[in-house]
Amino acid sequence: MRIALDAMGGDHAPGPIVAGAVQAVRADPELQVVLVGDQTQIEACLHELGGAPERLEIFHASQVVGMDESPVEALRKKPDNSITRCWQKLALHEVDGIVSAGNTGAMVAGGLLTKRFLKCVERPGIAAVMPSFAGPCVVLDVGANIAPKPEHLFQYGIMGSIYARLVLGKDQPKIGLLNVGEEDSKGNPLAKKTHQLFNSSPLKDQFIGNIEGRDIHRGKCDVVVCDGFTGNVVLKLSEGVFEFVMKMMGKELAETLQAEKHLGMQAIQNLIGRYDYSETGGAPLLGVDGICIICHGSSGERAIFNALGVAARGVRLRLNEQIVRELEKLPAVDNQPSR
Amino acid sequence: MRIALDAMGGDHAPGPIVAGAVQAVRADPELQVVLVGDQTQIEACLHELGGAPERLEIFHASQVVGMDESPVEALRKKPDNSITRCWQKLALHEVDGIVSAGNTGAMVAGGLLTKRFLKCVERPGIAAVMPSFAGPCVVLDVGANIAPKPEHLFQYGIMGSIYARLVLGKDQPKIGLLNVGEEDSKGNPLAKKTHQLFNSSPLKDQFIGNIEGRDIHRGKCDVVVCDGFTGNVVLKLSEGVFEFVMKMMGKELAETLQAEKHLGMQAIQNLIGRYDYSETGGAPLLGVDGICIICHGSSGERAIFNALGVAARGVRLRLNEQIVRELEKLPAVDNQPSR
Repeated sequence: MRIALDAMGGDHAPGPIVAGAVQAVRADPELQVVLVGDQTQIEACLHELGGAPERLEIFHASQVVGMDESPVEALRKKPDNSITRCWQKLALHEVDGIVSAGNTGAMVAGGLLTKRFLKCVERPGIAAVMPSFAGPCVVLDVGANIAPKPEHLFQYGIMGSIYARLVLGKDQPKIGLLNVGEEDSKGNPLAKKTHQLFNSSPLKDQFIGNIEGRDIHRGKCDVVVCDGFTGNVVLKLSEGVFEFVMKMMGKELAETLQAEKHLGMQAIQNLIGRYDYSETGGAPLLGVDGICIICHGSSGERAIFNALGVAARGVRLRLNEQIVRELEKLPAVDNQPSR
Repeated sequence: MRIALDAMGGDHAPGPIVAGAVQAVRADPELQVVLVGDQTQIEACLHELGGAPERLEIFHASQVVGMDESPVEALRKKPDNSITRCWQKLALHEVDGIVSAGNTGAMVAGGLLTKRFLKCVERPGIAAVMPSFAGPCVVLDVGANIAPKPEHLFQYGIMGSIYARLVLGKDQPKIGLLNVGEEDSKGNPLAKKTHQLFNSSPLKDQFIGNIEGRDIHRGKCDVVVCDGFTGNVVLKLSEGVFEFVMKMMGKELAETLQAEKHLGMQAIQNLIGRYDYSETGGAPLLGVDGICIICHGSSGERAIFNALGVAARGVRLRLNEQIVRELEKLPAVDNQPSR
């Protein structure tokens, strides 16, 4: 199994990115990683790490898309950038998957430009795994498709459900539509139409209807479907609230505890460690032909190691074959494909 | 000053609602409260509380809008419901403000139906106060207007800014637009157009541009502008994440602390108390002629007491006069009013 890793993507690239790759190939004897990026810099990193292990190769790409660059423009102006090169390798079937902690917009745009969507998929969506009282749940889309059609959200439900079953181990996952209220009639036109699509589809039994923001962490469903604008806010807001509450908790414990202040701080560190994004290892862009994992911009060695693990798992589980099989079984929801 | 209180609104009505009103008139010698709802039930509650204090009167309304009823339909089918009666009192200037913990959709619909918007206001929006590292910030709209136009969001920025200045005491409040990235070019068509409106307006200096979900609690701005769909998710998701983290923290502390477990639990209770919605006392629906405060459905005595305080404060600060004055100063942003 071969995975292309964007060695130049992320706030701390290439050092920790390369280090994560070295760790990953050491941990998984079937994994081959192609480090895509500036050959000189990558070689210097590998040298620092004591040389390149087997199953690690370099593919030179001379350009880098900056984290703040306008995605489409950057891809156009810099044809030899590491993100485009990763996508090209995927399109040519030279690799089974790609991983990047670089500019998320550019990663998605790269996928849209290659147009190598899975059969029957209208638009890919980013699936983020979030914690809840009922275990992990998958929220999609969290930013690939900020102005989707109801048909796209319906397909996200299917893809998310397969992901929840195969990767999160949930039997018959429950699908919820993120909305402003639970009643069927609630929501903007997109939510209302999507609600109808689910309710009149073979997924009806898995669809629990509308859920509200507070229901995500309560674990009301295993798959949360939403447009990419709302989903992106959900993902980043959760991070912000968590960060805020942890800091406030630290202050509160420092003031309240007496002799066991150090244990209180340790409890906070434990919780931060458990819900750290580094442990989830990046979010898959579901619906493209091949496995594509998008990582947090500030990913370090551990996050990249885990992201490569998630990519390898997606390949092994034949995630995409399952998605195509399910989509093919369903009656078409849109007679005029919008791709 | 007279405030009409929907005595029948909320999960626990009328008991704690009436109790909150009794507390509020006792605390504020200038406050008169009109309890709107079933006279017999309200009288029974007052009897239990030891009789009605002065400055508390009852206005009988025979019907109640259920928490889960479809708002517009319920208002139409039940003309003598307590929410409609509150709005009518406001429209007739019999009261200066109204407060309800009832069906939020019906409260908003009641306001839209009376059409008593402030001069120059295109659409009212619900403003929620949320905590951040830089103190409280106001997020609007959180659910009144789920498919707004850019002009609506622009006006929310103005109204939110006045609220932040007068009520939260922020000098020259910073306004941020909730989006999927910081770069100016980011977002769906609504966000892009709204960004342009702010940047080409006299509010330019207060406008800090796009913010992301994680920036709200980081305190990057004092006013967060967003559509009512996203804002509603933000409000409820924050509640859900807070609840989740507090429970997980409780478990973690119980396992980590030794002799001071009880102090750890006390720290958690302190934090929950500090960020309890009961303390913020409900969210104002800004842009209507009169003060309107919408409370959490599960509001108890304390929340209603605080909500009446927020309403009284809005009246005293002449919040609405300030809003009209600011809006009148600005060049019209829309030549074709969409109301």
